[in-house]
Amino acid sequence: MDTKFSVAIHILAMISETADVLNSKALAESVGTNASYIRKVLALLKNANLITSHQGKAGYDLSRPASDISLLDIYYATQEVQHVTLFQVHQNTNPECPVGQNIEGAVAPLFHSVEAQLESQLAHQSLADVIANLYEQAGRKA
Amino acid sequence: MDTKFSVAIHILAMISETADVLNSKALAESVGTNASYIRKVLALLKNANLITSHQGKAGYDLSRPASDISLLDIYYATQEVQHVTLFQVHQNTNPECPVGQNIEGAVAPLFHSVEAQLESQLAHQSLADVIANLYEQAGRKA
Repeated sequence: MDTKFSVAIHILAMISETADVLNSKALAESVGTNASYIRKVLALLKNANLITSHQGKAGYDLSRPASDISLLDIYYATQEVQHVTLFQVHQNTNPECPVGQNIEGAVAPLFHSVEAQLESQLAHQSLADVIANLYEQAGRKA
Repeated sequence: MDTKFSVAIHILAMISETADVLNSKALAESVGTNASYIRKVLALLKNANLITSHQGKAGYDLSRPASDISLLDIYYATQEVQHVTLFQVHQNTNPECPVGQNIEGAVAPLFHSVEAQLESQLAHQSLADVIANLYEQAGRKA
């Protein structure tokens, strides 16, 4: 898996907590990547309506409070999906074989239930939780 | 993600529920793939000690009862890992930036907690559950 998910969390935390106007170069310096990668992630976050930019004004704002942006929202935005898919069931099984005929129906519900629980866990963690962790971490080092 | 995980579940269910001696060709026919892919997955299952073969005798046996083989065991065997890693935190963040300095410590515990819960869900589903689903599916069609 790529790091778009965690980079997006980083960007959103910066947008939320920094008073300065942030451009992609400043974000890239904090994240430790290049500005073009940052612009790609910013475009995904804009597409998903998690951030807004204002015409004729530099910088970005969160579209809603950090407590209303879940990790699931950020995951969906960066992976460009609407469901978590962790596991794939093989296709082309032999319909003449009792196992081949029924394996998808036997396995898919188990996979989907695990995926649904993961979605629910990510839905219950918000950007505000990450930001609270950031301050806690910073406080511990101070 | 590849389908080694679900193919392995299929193979293990066949080994558990078929009285006939199964070679990789017969397994490949049920799974709908080639025998060389099946042999690759069988080798992973043998390495993880989930199946045993007997010298001078064709076929395979489960190393322990299906109820003692969890989906997590099968996942670890086929992915050749000892932990579930779903998400990666980006590295090389800027230590001069308060967010860059603390983002890993803020995000990694959230990721790990989600991963640990996924492990626990897979640990609580066994091959026996899949086999029960197989019979239920077959019964529904009968």
